[in-house]
Amino acid sequence: MLRLYDSLLSGNSWKVRILLNQLARPFERVTLDLGKGEARTAEFGHKSRFARVPVLELEDGKTIVESGAILLYLAQGTPYLPKDLYERAEVTSWLFFEQVDLQKSIAPCRVHHLHGHADSMPQEIERLHAEGYAGLEKLDKWLTGRRWLVGDRYTVADLALFPYVSMSPQGRFDLERFAAVRQWIARVEGEPGWINLWHGGAPPVR
Amino acid sequence: MLRLYDSLLSGNSWKVRILLNQLARPFERVTLDLGKGEARTAEFGHKSRFARVPVLELEDGKTIVESGAILLYLAQGTPYLPKDLYERAEVTSWLFFEQVDLQKSIAPCRVHHLHGHADSMPQEIERLHAEGYAGLEKLDKWLTGRRWLVGDRYTVADLALFPYVSMSPQGRFDLERFAAVRQWIARVEGEPGWINLWHGGAPPVR
Repeated sequence: MLRLYDSLLSGNSWKVRILLNQLARPFERVTLDLGKGEARTAEFGHKSRFARVPVLELEDGKTIVESGAILLYLAQGTPYLPKDLYERAEVTSWLFFEQVDLQKSIAPCRVHHLHGHADSMPQEIERLHAEGYAGLEKLDKWLTGRRWLVGDRYTVADLALFPYVSMSPQGRFDLERFAAVRQWIARVEGEPGWINLWHGGAPPVR
Repeated sequence: MLRLYDSLLSGNSWKVRILLNQLARPFERVTLDLGKGEARTAEFGHKSRFARVPVLELEDGKTIVESGAILLYLAQGTPYLPKDLYERAEVTSWLFFEQVDLQKSIAPCRVHHLHGHADSMPQEIERLHAEGYAGLEKLDKWLTGRRWLVGDRYTVADLALFPYVSMSPQGRFDLERFAAVRQWIARVEGEPGWINLWHGGAPPVR
């Protein structure tokens, strides 16, 4: 059986859990406590050369790291990844954009706020907000007049962008002016097989 | 004929030019002056929704953005991208790591130093150095005892990581303690079809 190493708060791990559910692929879930350094042990280092989650462990014990690589691997040959090479390149380009232009700024901003550290680092929060808003603006512009990111249907591109964009208000991003983004978030949440962040796991104690 | 929109300094564009040369694919090169805002015009916005280079324009006028997506598209069906799905996932994971953990810190650090702004932003340079060194350490650890990133041959994973890692000293990163990285850089430069950054274009005026 597939095994997924994740953490309770990780949006990158949430992407993989949603796709596994949508594909009806059974898996064993191993949830690490990142605060206790469980992703930085030598043992976990053999599973993840980058010392982070998510990690997908295959039946033969080999592991795949990086959420984008895991999504593309699992979606291969399914309706969630276009067969057409050009459309697939479109999907892939969104996956890179998400990691660099959205996740890289929204994720730490969210963690700083959830952990109550944000007020002590105003310059860092300002920098992260500037970067994240620049990404959200490009996304909103693209989604205006479109239902999905690539072609006319939901793909792993939509799935990959969904978690950190939808959770960005936890990092005090205001989505009010991004109407197309808000409507798209609702569409993704309405897809068959979508599950919320806490599905199968307890919410973290604040 | 393929058309590549790039810029003289862009390491992400360099990746694509190397691969096109290694694949012996002829292409027309259109070099933008980013300092003059040539990537932010409305016209270029139709080619690149993210307002940046590289952009690969296909024969039918459609465009592919994001260097990682372009590399995966061009390498499909060639020796530079493994056919095996697991090995391909390994390649893809390195492409994501490069954008988030290396390029995102090394590229701006390099630009700040090349443009002479670095001394006025010590905290920002310190932050970028900390991030970039963390990525370089993971890379060096992986390359120790290995010739290539994935399997036993050069792939687009090596190509994708090469430009910003090899140019990191321009951002005052010291590669002295990363012996495996330095040997790997020399191997990549020795690959058939490798071309230097200025191949076919003039070096920028300092």
